[in-house]
Amino acid sequence: MIHEILRPIIKPGDLVVDATLGNGFDTLFLAKAVGPQGKVIGFDIQECAIENVRRRLENEGLLERVSLIQDSHSNIDKYIFEPIGGAMFNLGYLPGGDKELITKPQSTVEALEKTSCLLSRGGFITILSYWGHAGGKDEKEAVEKFLSKLDNKIFLTAKFKFLNRSGNPPVIYLVQKL
Amino acid sequence: MIHEILRPIIKPGDLVVDATLGNGFDTLFLAKAVGPQGKVIGFDIQECAIENVRRRLENEGLLERVSLIQDSHSNIDKYIFEPIGGAMFNLGYLPGGDKELITKPQSTVEALEKTSCLLSRGGFITILSYWGHAGGKDEKEAVEKFLSKLDNKIFLTAKFKFLNRSGNPPVIYLVQKL
Repeated sequence: MIHEILRPIIKPGDLVVDATLGNGFDTLFLAKAVGPQGKVIGFDIQECAIENVRRRLENEGLLERVSLIQDSHSNIDKYIFEPIGGAMFNLGYLPGGDKELITKPQSTVEALEKTSCLLSRGGFITILSYWGHAGGKDEKEAVEKFLSKLDNKIFLTAKFKFLNRSGNPPVIYLVQKL
Repeated sequence: MIHEILRPIIKPGDLVVDATLGNGFDTLFLAKAVGPQGKVIGFDIQECAIENVRRRLENEGLLERVSLIQDSHSNIDKYIFEPIGGAMFNLGYLPGGDKELITKPQSTVEALEKTSCLLSRGGFITILSYWGHAGGKDEKEAVEKFLSKLDNKIFLTAKFKFLNRSGNPPVIYLVQKL
């Protein structure tokens, strides 16, 4: 669903960020969306994520449009110095990976803060928050608090949640720079 | 934004419903989306809404795809007996119209219940809820309660809200029949 929302927003040639590589599903989507003139920069602290995504991109012939960085997305300001068209975040743990290795409230909010400052006009941030694990609710609340306070003259922020699903269905947050 | 979500869902030839004609903005959108083989059925209790929308449709040459019914959308089951591809609701009062004439919790939920029963597989309901007026919060809560209880094996229901806008920004609800 997030891909459907983003497809008309991302322009060929854009510089965009996959803040949490995970299994590379979003990275592939972004690499296709920005086209041969575009660029994707992807972050993950886990080496296995970096390697998996590198392989997937190579298989699809898309690796040259993507830079993979093994570092926390909260250090995004050490790697990117120009405006970006958008960034995608998946919060929680790597599906199929180590459930102990989760994104944390403080670094997540720091990364969102730095990323929002990098956005070009019309640029977006999508945040898919899985929050059923220990600490997940705290992170979701920290993100929501941060987004609720973002200046509404500069950013539009919104929340999308399922109403009739049991358990802890993921929540989607959206940020767009006006 | 709702139009962007619906554009890929509505198919040429569909039968769809504008449950609250209002100023006809959605009616026009739906009439274009269903194409010359499609059909839109629009409800409004206010004669001025019916007349305004009729004129707009005539000007656009789209009137023959649309049936305008001056009755409450809660009587939808008296007019429609076949599956529909979707329905759009705008809750609150007619922008620029009489602020005393508002949709009410009981008839709104009744209309939503009947409309959900008419949905074909993959069909949708969108609900744009303005709730800043007296009674608006009660209606919003009644809608949310109804949607939260819809069987999740048959329907997906979701809520979209703005996080950093002051006042009482409109809320969007979505229903899709699985």
